[in-house]
Amino acid sequence: MAVYTQIADDDLRSFLADYDVGELHSYKGIAEGVQNTNYLVRTSKTSYILTLYEKLVETKDLPFFLGLMEHLATHDISCPLPVEDKNGQVLKTLSGCPAVMVTFLDGFSVNRPKRAHCAGLGTALGAMHIAGADFEMARPNTLAVGDWRPLFEKCGDGVDNIHPGLHEVITAEMAFLENNWPKDLPTGIIHADLFPDNVFFLDDNLSGLIDFYFACNDFLSYDLAVCLNAWCFESDCSFNMTNARALLSGYEQTRPLQEQELQALPLLARGAALRFLLTRIYDWINTPADALVNRHDPREYLRKLLFHQQIKNVSEYGFGK
Amino acid sequence: MAVYTQIADDDLRSFLADYDVGELHSYKGIAEGVQNTNYLVRTSKTSYILTLYEKLVETKDLPFFLGLMEHLATHDISCPLPVEDKNGQVLKTLSGCPAVMVTFLDGFSVNRPKRAHCAGLGTALGAMHIAGADFEMARPNTLAVGDWRPLFEKCGDGVDNIHPGLHEVITAEMAFLENNWPKDLPTGIIHADLFPDNVFFLDDNLSGLIDFYFACNDFLSYDLAVCLNAWCFESDCSFNMTNARALLSGYEQTRPLQEQELQALPLLARGAALRFLLTRIYDWINTPADALVNRHDPREYLRKLLFHQQIKNVSEYGFGK
Repeated sequence: MAVYTQIADDDLRSFLADYDVGELHSYKGIAEGVQNTNYLVRTSKTSYILTLYEKLVETKDLPFFLGLMEHLATHDISCPLPVEDKNGQVLKTLSGCPAVMVTFLDGFSVNRPKRAHCAGLGTALGAMHIAGADFEMARPNTLAVGDWRPLFEKCGDGVDNIHPGLHEVITAEMAFLENNWPKDLPTGIIHADLFPDNVFFLDDNLSGLIDFYFACNDFLSYDLAVCLNAWCFESDCSFNMTNARALLSGYEQTRPLQEQELQALPLLARGAALRFLLTRIYDWINTPADALVNRHDPREYLRKLLFHQQIKNVSEYGFGK
Repeated sequence: MAVYTQIADDDLRSFLADYDVGELHSYKGIAEGVQNTNYLVRTSKTSYILTLYEKLVETKDLPFFLGLMEHLATHDISCPLPVEDKNGQVLKTLSGCPAVMVTFLDGFSVNRPKRAHCAGLGTALGAMHIAGADFEMARPNTLAVGDWRPLFEKCGDGVDNIHPGLHEVITAEMAFLENNWPKDLPTGIIHADLFPDNVFFLDDNLSGLIDFYFACNDFLSYDLAVCLNAWCFESDCSFNMTNARALLSGYEQTRPLQEQELQALPLLARGAALRFLLTRIYDWINTPADALVNRHDPREYLRKLLFHQQIKNVSEYGFGK
């Protein structure tokens, strides 16, 4: 939400001289990325997004994220393409931070996703899963089922202050998911954070996927479960079956689900709801109320979790064969 | 420094439908403006800056600021031009805030101004003063010599915590300036806040002036005194005589100074230094240290004030006839 690192014009001009991108015309710090600094850079040729990585913890995974974006962008997935300098380098240094320039994508995220958006999202997600199949690098999911318990323990004792009884709901759900989590679904590269913020549209047609900084190897259908949570509920947390059906049938346009993946969706959706519930609780407790960073209300994901707990069969989502 | 008001895509598309600006292609919250929310909006036609005004105190003066920008932009001063909607309206409402779209200016501000920048700045400032002469609206300077004492009183008792003895320096300087402030210099429309942040360059040529939200009627030469403070000192607060000479001779390319204006410059420069010293002290005391908004060190302007106090004659700035 904030620009942390200010770039001096002299430093930026020296940096851009390493690239074949033309002359600098303007640059503006933009309010994208919670942990990174992002600039929209316009040159005599075109526009770019310049990202400075502030958190050291991320940099060891940068070759994976950048390699993945390059792999996907060159396999017909519309996502930012990391720009090489004149020596073929992608990961550079600017103002003391690791820095990368990527191509600018037209489009904007939708605040209230509708049927057409979910259909386009599903199709793009399936295509991304197919395109990721021959990507050679791998990265474990650091927010997988086995990571939830240690994360919950770090949240401390204040959880019930967010909602009475929340601690007990999570404890029971965590035990259930640990015991019942699938072991043998098809795996591959997943985005793992494909919220509406991270998907651009133009005229209701999907124009790009961004923010691959949670991408990892995991069950492909778990990615769909994340989207089911993030795209198929109204702001009052009522389930939007039209959106869900559009998401699934869009997905199956590019990658038809196996029967076991379909049947696992309610469980995976509970897992995805718990994962975002836990990170939101952690952020809620650890972000000062007056910070300019937006805190997301964890209770939204409690309500979604409770909804998915009621689903006894995947057909209750409205998914009919 | 931060985007305060989030705009939903639906709201922005409805808003843009009132204008003849083409289809929305992208919009990004940008880190410009301390009290306003600014978006860089790209359409199928071109790019715009969309500003949402958050502070009610400003809105009564908006017709003055917007009228001035329009007046200057149509009198060959490169500054943002407020965009009219299809009904000729400039000041609109979006997400519950007064909102205005202006044209996007190419260029970027320079971190370390050099001779060429100061020369260009001076020439543009003189041209702006000339162009403002037939602007029909007026606005008093709300940070003029008579406003400094009440502002200082609002800073409270903590002033010496910033720098030992600061309270006494300011008390003496305020009394001196109140007694000696000129009364009869040429007046007109001044920018009053023409810091390097607010001036764009392309290839070291000035490409635009922005941020007219302190513009008002006052001594024209006071604007030059503000620039002398903001552009002609190194980061260690040593005076850069080369920059100062370039600023003055650039200015006199478009508006030669009268002898009394030239002689008044050391006094006006003390006043400008005190004015920014006082607002920085006020902001320093009233902004939490952990806020994401940048606080500017007031001591920079104490050092500049002490420098100007030593100037007995304007020739000591290096201004020779």
